[in-house]
Amino acid sequence: MIELKVDLGARSYPILIGDGLLGTPDLLTPYIGGRQVAVVTNTTVGPLFLDQLKASLGSVAVDVIELKDGERFKTLDTYASVIDALMGKRHNRTTTLVALGGGVIGDLAGFAAATFQRGVAFVQVPTTLLAQVDASVGGKTGVNHSSGKNMIGAFHQPRCVLADTATLATLPAREYRAGLAEVVKYGVIWSAQFFAQLEGQIDALNQRDAAVLAEVIRESCAIKAEVVAEDEREQGRRAILNYGHTFAHALETLTGYEQLLHGEAVAIGMVLAADCACRHDLLDEASVQRIRNLVGALGLPTEMPDAIDPSAALTVMGMDKKVVDGRLRLVLPERIGAVRVTDQVERATVLTTLEAG
Amino acid sequence: MIELKVDLGARSYPILIGDGLLGTPDLLTPYIGGRQVAVVTNTTVGPLFLDQLKASLGSVAVDVIELKDGERFKTLDTYASVIDALMGKRHNRTTTLVALGGGVIGDLAGFAAATFQRGVAFVQVPTTLLAQVDASVGGKTGVNHSSGKNMIGAFHQPRCVLADTATLATLPAREYRAGLAEVVKYGVIWSAQFFAQLEGQIDALNQRDAAVLAEVIRESCAIKAEVVAEDEREQGRRAILNYGHTFAHALETLTGYEQLLHGEAVAIGMVLAADCACRHDLLDEASVQRIRNLVGALGLPTEMPDAIDPSAALTVMGMDKKVVDGRLRLVLPERIGAVRVTDQVERATVLTTLEAG
Repeated sequence: MIELKVDLGARSYPILIGDGLLGTPDLLTPYIGGRQVAVVTNTTVGPLFLDQLKASLGSVAVDVIELKDGERFKTLDTYASVIDALMGKRHNRTTTLVALGGGVIGDLAGFAAATFQRGVAFVQVPTTLLAQVDASVGGKTGVNHSSGKNMIGAFHQPRCVLADTATLATLPAREYRAGLAEVVKYGVIWSAQFFAQLEGQIDALNQRDAAVLAEVIRESCAIKAEVVAEDEREQGRRAILNYGHTFAHALETLTGYEQLLHGEAVAIGMVLAADCACRHDLLDEASVQRIRNLVGALGLPTEMPDAIDPSAALTVMGMDKKVVDGRLRLVLPERIGAVRVTDQVERATVLTTLEAG
Repeated sequence: MIELKVDLGARSYPILIGDGLLGTPDLLTPYIGGRQVAVVTNTTVGPLFLDQLKASLGSVAVDVIELKDGERFKTLDTYASVIDALMGKRHNRTTTLVALGGGVIGDLAGFAAATFQRGVAFVQVPTTLLAQVDASVGGKTGVNHSSGKNMIGAFHQPRCVLADTATLATLPAREYRAGLAEVVKYGVIWSAQFFAQLEGQIDALNQRDAAVLAEVIRESCAIKAEVVAEDEREQGRRAILNYGHTFAHALETLTGYEQLLHGEAVAIGMVLAADCACRHDLLDEASVQRIRNLVGALGLPTEMPDAIDPSAALTVMGMDKKVVDGRLRLVLPERIGAVRVTDQVERATVLTTLEAG
């Protein structure tokens, strides 16, 4: 088992990473505060892993709150149903909420933990690669609003994150690859060495090699933790984690969040941002090609869907919530391993990038 | 104008206290971050003070979200309507929410500020005495659940609190007195000198003397700030602020939250807790009498409503959310100016107190 400590002072916590960890007796017991636990999961993941999870929770009383599976249930209504269930089962402020599932479950259960009785203990058991490398660090929780994703939420750190690579074996191929997009992101924004390591492990990654995955998850979480530790409440530095995301959100919006998985949109967005950086004379062409090649070799898309109109995409980017006072802020690589946040890119350059994408 | 700084490190903020402060041009301008402001108020308070408030906000764009007046609207549904309004009016994460009203508006708008886009700036303009001395400090926000008060919420500190004593002139007499109950509380739990000062200012308080009120509000907020600074997330010391509240919640529950205002229930609860402390050999009889006398002289009730059954009240107290693992924790005075949190009181002693109350 690999144990990575996320260092946030009084709110520090460990990420436990390994193959087949779920089911290890009492593995999570040290992170349960009171005598009640509520596991929030969905109808897909619950049947696969609930029994193993319970074994890791020891002798505490466990209630299960099973939600429907899908991003469209990440709403204030579903959140209210979780609160209703906690009240109905008489949970108090010493309870611990455990999220068992992907990003939707983690975000929603995390928001319930952040706000039930003004905040209770929270443990995350992410079962997708995306959730393991992204949601494990950062403390973001929340639900969607009908007119925008993640518009309602809070920052709430978990007591512990348990990332069992064995849960990735059952992931559909597209979902697994979507997680790899975020892994590539950490290489581009922070570590040329990690990026090169990924280039050398393409086959192992495509075959979901457990040992390679555990190491890749550890490194991804370590990078994210370093970024977040500098900027827990997302005022500045943390913005680099949005590399590829401003383009991605535009693609997701214009395809109605159906055609592309989030990670697939991020994959295209990273290639677009690299190309844009090159057109802005920030990044060399060879590095753009390396990014495009790695993304493609991991089975991820590198080009915009044909149906997307470049100027419509630009308009959507201008409406992105990360736009402060009308300036378009982009995260652009200056080399592999380092990015810069800039509002100096001409809209014309972005438009050309979109037209070529 | 009196300015009191609440010292919470990076989250420190001022409380501005005075007579007729609302309307002072640009008084609140320094606390507005972006270029959008949403004022959350209700149909009673809005018409009285909105114009003055706008003058204090300077030239920023102001949207008004007017809610129905009353504790029964402090719900997740009303919260959702505030979020809908913010989204509908295209507010982004640089917006500032301003609460104009009593405790319900402050709690609800505060929870919206805590969770809209994972947290935006918040300014409080409390217009009741209770809100000025209680909600101004502590950062508690939230809404009620159908099966319990304040079951959903978050901690979120304001950028600034503006307490204008002129807004108290329009308060109904019962509501005004209910606020005085919390003022008395600060004397009992923290300062014999403040308690004695209140005993000497009974007439001025009953006549709502603006200068006396400003000083009393300052001292109340200063005491609460001292307690909260030691314990921002309510783990221990902060529990002393619940003096009188465990009894009060039982009375409120058994009278269906209709017969008694919260402050009235706290008034009775403080007398009961003092009497209970005396029966537990912690407090002398003369101090119990001084507390009872001051509460009564300020026009507040000192005795339980006849309709309440003592053993039913005890049962409700045992179900209170502040009960940890079955022990009844009470905040009892050991002298005027100092209280102790204890779980050593026999239930029989509490029952005798209730029967005599």
